Amino acid sequence: MLTLYHNPQSRSTTVHLMLHELGEPFEIVPIDLKAGEHKLPEFLKINPMGKIPVLRDGDVIVTETPAILVYLADKYPKAGLAPAIDAPDRGTFLRWMFFYGSCVEPASIDIAVKRETPPTFAGWGTPENVFDTLSAGLKPGPWLLGARFSAADVMVGSGLAYMLGFGVLPPRPEFVDYVARLEARPARIAAKAADAARLAG
Amino acid sequence: MLTLYHNPQSRSTTVHLMLHELGEPFEIVPIDLKAGEHKLPEFLKINPMGKIPVLRDGDVIVTETPAILVYLADKYPKAGLAPAIDAPDRGTFLRWMFFYGSCVEPASIDIAVKRETPPTFAGWGTPENVFDTLSAGLKPGPWLLGARFSAADVMVGSGLAYMLGFGVLPPRPEFVDYVARLEARPARIAAKAADAARLAG
Repeated sequence: MLTLYHNPQSRSTTVHLMLHELGEPFEIVPIDLKAGEHKLPEFLKINPMGKIPVLRDGDVIVTETPAILVYLADKYPKAGLAPAIDAPDRGTFLRWMFFYGSCVEPASIDIAVKRETPPTFAGWGTPENVFDTLSAGLKPGPWLLGARFSAADVMVGSGLAYMLGFGVLPPRPEFVDYVARLEARPARIAAKAADAARLAG
Repeated sequence: MLTLYHNPQSRSTTVHLMLHELGEPFEIVPIDLKAGEHKLPEFLKINPMGKIPVLRDGDVIVTETPAILVYLADKYPKAGLAPAIDAPDRGTFLRWMFFYGSCVEPASIDIAVKRETPPTFAGWGTPENVFDTLSAGLKPGPWLLGARFSAADVMVGSGLAYMLGFGVLPPRPEFVDYVARLEARPARIAAKAADAARLAG
């Protein structure tokens, strides 16, 4: 059984969406961030970083959102959310999976806290460079791998939705349209409805 | 044939080491960073981020160092540098592969440019938190997956060597010892010798 340590008002929503896209049964362990449950000794044994999401798959614990997504997409291939290891678009898939956490996220945070891009020995480059690369990657679309929706879209699409929602990201039409396509997916709608019910109840 | 766009005085040394660990034939396309070859239109067609490393595998182009490492380890399994998709330590492997670029690198850059950790909506956490997690992960050792050396050690070990070399990282004994183990590997010695010859010639 797959178990997600989750809070509907956190980045674990990305993995929650992934589980809905995957279509495998899963259960939720709610984590109350305001009560600091992610900093309790019991939780730190699971993830010493004291953060969610955490995925448990039997005895296996996986942390770091994109790591969880690649893990799930590869291990449960029925949903077709990752190209196979010998498929021609495997390299492009992995590139986008890593590009999010290594480049989009730190570049976005630099914008969010209004600080300069660090010198070039930092791997991520300027925000303009990062967002131009992403814009180019979203053409011709509709998804990062073209016609095929993948876990890379769960990662990058959720991330862009979050950053656009907080006004961090420039609302380029290609970003806004991409996020709109993600929001229209049945799995996204179902995941959001399930989270809304959790918050209400 | 595998082709690496490479400069011996850059982060592409991590992929260069990986190719030596892999034991597959490869060729090098030297990139003169001082001459700005990585910003020329021809190169930007390959990687719009204008940075190395870039790996070419036939028609497939892969960028982002950890993406290249996962790609190679999975596609060329003979060297055993990645647990198989259904192996119990696959999740741990992926976690460390992503932890480097998403957490170790931005935390290290925050230290290098002497700036504060951004608020908690940034995914990586404080440097202390990141380095404590890494210290815990290196016990019992000798490698991140225990007895088994993997591409995660190529990534994290090379990164720590680089950050320790620049005095960015706290020289915790477990980091220094880990890097020393990496430096003693035949593939690391061969890769460094090949790079020294390139720089000399």
